[in-house]
Amino acid sequence: MRGAVIHAPGDVRFEERDDPKIIEPTDAVIRTVATCVCGSDLWPYRGIEAVDEPHPMGHEYVGIVEEVGAEVTSVTPGQFVVGSFATSDNTCPNCRAGYQSSCLRREFMTTCQAEYVRIPQAQGTLVATPDRPAGEFVPSLLAVSDVMGTGWYAAVAAEVRPGSTAVVVGDGAVGLCGVIAARELGAERIIAVSRHEPRQKLALEFGATDIVTERGEEGVARVKELTGGIGADSVLECVGTQEAMRQALRSTRPGGNVGFVGVPHDVRIDGEELFFSHVGLRGGPAPVRRFLPNLIDRVLTGRINPGRVFDLTLPLEQVAEGYRAMDERRAIKALLTP
Amino acid sequence: MRGAVIHAPGDVRFEERDDPKIIEPTDAVIRTVATCVCGSDLWPYRGIEAVDEPHPMGHEYVGIVEEVGAEVTSVTPGQFVVGSFATSDNTCPNCRAGYQSSCLRREFMTTCQAEYVRIPQAQGTLVATPDRPAGEFVPSLLAVSDVMGTGWYAAVAAEVRPGSTAVVVGDGAVGLCGVIAARELGAERIIAVSRHEPRQKLALEFGATDIVTERGEEGVARVKELTGGIGADSVLECVGTQEAMRQALRSTRPGGNVGFVGVPHDVRIDGEELFFSHVGLRGGPAPVRRFLPNLIDRVLTGRINPGRVFDLTLPLEQVAEGYRAMDERRAIKALLTP
Repeated sequence: MRGAVIHAPGDVRFEERDDPKIIEPTDAVIRTVATCVCGSDLWPYRGIEAVDEPHPMGHEYVGIVEEVGAEVTSVTPGQFVVGSFATSDNTCPNCRAGYQSSCLRREFMTTCQAEYVRIPQAQGTLVATPDRPAGEFVPSLLAVSDVMGTGWYAAVAAEVRPGSTAVVVGDGAVGLCGVIAARELGAERIIAVSRHEPRQKLALEFGATDIVTERGEEGVARVKELTGGIGADSVLECVGTQEAMRQALRSTRPGGNVGFVGVPHDVRIDGEELFFSHVGLRGGPAPVRRFLPNLIDRVLTGRINPGRVFDLTLPLEQVAEGYRAMDERRAIKALLTP
Repeated sequence: MRGAVIHAPGDVRFEERDDPKIIEPTDAVIRTVATCVCGSDLWPYRGIEAVDEPHPMGHEYVGIVEEVGAEVTSVTPGQFVVGSFATSDNTCPNCRAGYQSSCLRREFMTTCQAEYVRIPQAQGTLVATPDRPAGEFVPSLLAVSDVMGTGWYAAVAAEVRPGSTAVVVGDGAVGLCGVIAARELGAERIIAVSRHEPRQKLALEFGATDIVTERGEEGVARVKELTGGIGADSVLECVGTQEAMRQALRSTRPGGNVGFVGVPHDVRIDGEELFFSHVGLRGGPAPVRRFLPNLIDRVLTGRINPGRVFDLTLPLEQVAEGYRAMDERRAIKALLTP
């Protein structure tokens, strides 16, 4: 089969790779229906994370089950399944606590920009849709496997409540999905931080009530202006830089919460500042599995349409162009179909 | 009147100071019934915080109202009152959100080791007891004004729930009160981190079920052993050092919470480590005012007895000896009576 391999920063190739096989009795192999390029894939692509040797890429997927190991009974060949970028047995103490992305048997998926994918811990990782979904739902179901699940977790970690005010820092696909999540969780006011007109537009369509274009201290001041000088109840930090974290913490009211889902790169939080801020902080790789049944249902009932973050669709063999378009910010997110 | 003044590290004197007066119509003046020395008072005493010029000390107090300003109607002269180290109007948005120690009119009390004290924002800061309490209750009511209120907030911020496992890092008065709070909030297992035999004993009497004597990574490993390898649901960080924060974060299970109430001194939290830990973190100066009515009631009904953290009682004029005894760890906490 064929799939993406990164050879060096800026050098992603579509090439022949070994066919995935059942290795453990807890595995499944799926035929990919759709996969995509993630903002975090750009870290190695841009050379910010080292690329020591060529390796496959991709951690977002929906597909059709081809084969299952002997211990997998929850999904069967032929079913359409949605998974998560982190595998989970869904039975360990961390899974039972709702943190499946800290499963004791967790593996991070890394081979999904490909025609076929091996899914470890398939029993606890994959969720089948009730029927084979219509093609129009595929982008949103794919979004659920990562960016929508992550935006949802950001809103949950930031404790968005009905009637509250939420700020979303970051206008990538995760931030935009965070706007959807904040709206679904009942936020009355949703302030999206974005400088990019097409992303502002999508944020407003997804439920944002205000757009803030300023960053850093100016962005903080603007949010304070919009919130009676106090700050927001909930802030979703969807970037992962020091500047974004600082802006998020300072935009939050005392007693409010920051949910941070951008993988932090050289982020340090000052203990004394956090202390006097009274802000609660929780982040991490989203436990997407916790939210999958709920989010799949919201997609299939037409309540949410996070697939709209895909503004570029390419054949999988043009995966390199997907990276380029996202790197150059010509696309928010590129969907790939084998 | 007379009160404590710090002149330099190690040099606390009991000397004549100006009588406090009503300055604002929102003030009250109280006659001190009891005050005490706080662990945080040791920071300047030990020279870790600079002492640029002589200044009064003390932020814990219970007393009898002597006089009130024109706008103070909630307490009247002659009443026994408990306050907080942070003043609050109890009406601003932050107060209404339960974070009175972030009140927009907050002042930190700094003059309470004295015979009389001026209390700004008395209306929102002071809570009167139903009657003049018997002398046996005074130490616990004094504890409520700071260390018990702070231990309570640590447990609330760490989201201690019925049936949960809590770890308390720090065996000072706040940590010991944190044990009381964890028990009152229903923790089934309470692991106190302490190396000092008298403090271990008090922790066990307050409700600790296990004692861990190890610190740092060994302490983390011991907590993991006691919690099935996963970590605790809630950890109360009651020290304020980098080592204590690290131990607290690493002792917490994914999805668990750290409440941190030790004022951080040069504490930096690594964003990436916090991210992958899935731990929630909230700290700050405790909004004691939120908890005062509840905690006063628990004291007066005999349900809690946090006054036991005072293992040394001195006349106020011997305040310097109170500092020395705590600095040399001869006393957990020194109570002072004018």
